[in-house]
Amino acid sequence: MIQEMGRKAKASARILSGCSREQKDRAILELAESLERFQDEVLAANKVDLKAATEKGLAEALLDRLLLNPGRLSGMANGLRSLAGMGDPVGEIFEAQTLANGLRVHKRRVPLGVIGIIYEARPNVTVDVAGLAIKTGNAAILRGGSETVHSNRVLSDLARLALRVAGLPEDAIQFIDDPERARVLELLQMHESVDLIIPRGGAGLHRFCRENSRIPVITGGIGICHLFVDESADLQASLPLIRNAKVQRPSVCNALDTLLVHRRVASRFLPEVVACLEMDGVTFRAEAEALKLLEQTGRRPDSVTVAGADDFDTEWLSLVLGLKVVSGIEEAIEHIQAHSTFHSDGILTGSQKNAQRFLATVDSSAVYVNASTRFTDGSQLGLGAEVAISTQRLHARGPMGLRELTTYKWVIEGDYHVRE
Amino acid sequence: MIQEMGRKAKASARILSGCSREQKDRAILELAESLERFQDEVLAANKVDLKAATEKGLAEALLDRLLLNPGRLSGMANGLRSLAGMGDPVGEIFEAQTLANGLRVHKRRVPLGVIGIIYEARPNVTVDVAGLAIKTGNAAILRGGSETVHSNRVLSDLARLALRVAGLPEDAIQFIDDPERARVLELLQMHESVDLIIPRGGAGLHRFCRENSRIPVITGGIGICHLFVDESADLQASLPLIRNAKVQRPSVCNALDTLLVHRRVASRFLPEVVACLEMDGVTFRAEAEALKLLEQTGRRPDSVTVAGADDFDTEWLSLVLGLKVVSGIEEAIEHIQAHSTFHSDGILTGSQKNAQRFLATVDSSAVYVNASTRFTDGSQLGLGAEVAISTQRLHARGPMGLRELTTYKWVIEGDYHVRE
Repeated sequence: MIQEMGRKAKASARILSGCSREQKDRAILELAESLERFQDEVLAANKVDLKAATEKGLAEALLDRLLLNPGRLSGMANGLRSLAGMGDPVGEIFEAQTLANGLRVHKRRVPLGVIGIIYEARPNVTVDVAGLAIKTGNAAILRGGSETVHSNRVLSDLARLALRVAGLPEDAIQFIDDPERARVLELLQMHESVDLIIPRGGAGLHRFCRENSRIPVITGGIGICHLFVDESADLQASLPLIRNAKVQRPSVCNALDTLLVHRRVASRFLPEVVACLEMDGVTFRAEAEALKLLEQTGRRPDSVTVAGADDFDTEWLSLVLGLKVVSGIEEAIEHIQAHSTFHSDGILTGSQKNAQRFLATVDSSAVYVNASTRFTDGSQLGLGAEVAISTQRLHARGPMGLRELTTYKWVIEGDYHVRE
Repeated sequence: MIQEMGRKAKASARILSGCSREQKDRAILELAESLERFQDEVLAANKVDLKAATEKGLAEALLDRLLLNPGRLSGMANGLRSLAGMGDPVGEIFEAQTLANGLRVHKRRVPLGVIGIIYEARPNVTVDVAGLAIKTGNAAILRGGSETVHSNRVLSDLARLALRVAGLPEDAIQFIDDPERARVLELLQMHESVDLIIPRGGAGLHRFCRENSRIPVITGGIGICHLFVDESADLQASLPLIRNAKVQRPSVCNALDTLLVHRRVASRFLPEVVACLEMDGVTFRAEAEALKLLEQTGRRPDSVTVAGADDFDTEWLSLVLGLKVVSGIEEAIEHIQAHSTFHSDGILTGSQKNAQRFLATVDSSAVYVNASTRFTDGSQLGLGAEVAISTQRLHARGPMGLRELTTYKWVIEGDYHVRE
């Protein structure tokens, strides 16, 4: 059955790849309308999911992710409308050249083909991904978490309806509504019909995909993020920046996990950091020297405990911050290379030399000088829509936008040219 | 042991990624020199491989691939010298922008990291890949065919020596000289230290890598290539073009495999094709209509036989050509979509409309109008060096040059910016 979905997706992708921007945007706008028009149906299905999840005793945070309401639906609809307003990357021509022998060569951007998305309990992903896939001329096979199966069924049906209304093949969006995990494994083996797997979820899901997939997988979204406060940093300006990186939205991947502080400023700055951030409810895991220093200055409140063995290898996703004193930029870089997931890492410094050394040496998807790690985000960096944040090295790194859902072909035109 | 090679490669890649172009080119030029300086050692080792291969009864074509001689060695050395003369993609800055909030953002090209290359009985690949890896700041772990182990051991030692002489870490190039296939499996699992696998060999090797790798694999190099002769094609000019595509070097992936001919010109053109190419020793596999037509015109020589069930799904790599009559461009496109490996496919036509229809609809890595498929080649298309020809869709398609051995990082510089 999943095999059959793959075949249908591939056939639909072929049709979609040749469709005009207007036709694709019509489907996206139709989906936006229908989220509001069929609001009652969507919310009724969501209520079924919520009831089951509550009975299963799911955590409050998970229930909140699962929840749809009129406000969230119209937010999703507006997201689709702004997506429809964006340019179409498909058909873009680049690196055009005429060779010495007269051959005319260019690269032409084309859709990737069929994308498999495996995600957890966020029904908004269903709509986001449907929109992104249609916009970029790709077909998508969606596999959402079992907790959201009723919501996802209705939402993916709306996407298919929108495709039909726009005269496009409805099988460009298909939803696997069988909750068996075996279906995910089947999907990961279908290299003949699926071109790319994008997992959206925790580290376990990413690992599962990498270990079992015969299809290229975009891994990412896991961020153990660091900021290093150099001795020459503007400490007064650093404090609100660090607070922004840690506190603004602690549950996301670009939030700060570990603060490294230069020894020369640590005894002055660390107590300020603790005093400031503990007002937001942050608790701290301090390595020995940082801990000692906070004790010496009489500023070790209850919020500070000693860092455990794995604490610097933990993505907190909550109001916890690791603290460590380092002897300088080289030790900071070493720590980052040993503990980072290569998502977002930065330096706060007044030294141009150290800034350049950090940018050249730290090889994360996003490297920062004097800015909050929270900017690693498609909308913040001007991509408009965001597909995922890649922390792997192939194809795309960091925030992925529409263009990263495409590939290219070489187009070569001649006058009956033969190779010498 | 392979694990240990991975760790060393990763550490070396980190150092190499920060090295100057001059230093990398020095290593490449040193390797070029040493191929000539240590010619006797290389040829002696190659003789051992050749003797064993001859005793094992390897085919003539394989023995030829394995053979090194002074001419081939100096060809390899000259290839390295021209590589040293090429620009360094590492450090290139692109898509630089200043955001409305004042953040300065750009993408900076960086090496991929550690590349695993798995190849068959071609010792020149050892030298080519060592040069390409050093040039692009990547470390490489090489696994050549067991038939060439003595040659490869000497050649990879020369590459390591060249790195040392240039002051670079010798472990940037490592060679797995244990012929056990289990070592390949181990290499394919090392996702913590290896960033990319490039198989260079036949379809079986590519399949093995895709099925067993936890690391992204660039598959490619398998070409079932098509040319469609439209009714409006310049038939006189088409003949030498088809001959070029089929005959110039039949053993390579961009050689022609199947010729599709428009029904309206088939009875005139097919006999000409057969008469012309059979002088080069080409034999033909004709589907029913083509066969009948050749018989009707009294021009079915011994070189033409009926096409078997799998013949249109075979990459010939030899002087065999499939022949098929089609009703027009749509049937040609359908045949290509059903049988192509999406390497190189082209149309010969006088119709601009049909040319554009073909280019838009046939989604191969390289699509052609009025040119021989033999141009799908890094050096022909202006890339200089060629790493591989990718027929998969992620990261790179078609001929891959130096730039395709790199990735990028986002660099974000601010003045203590926080996200609103």
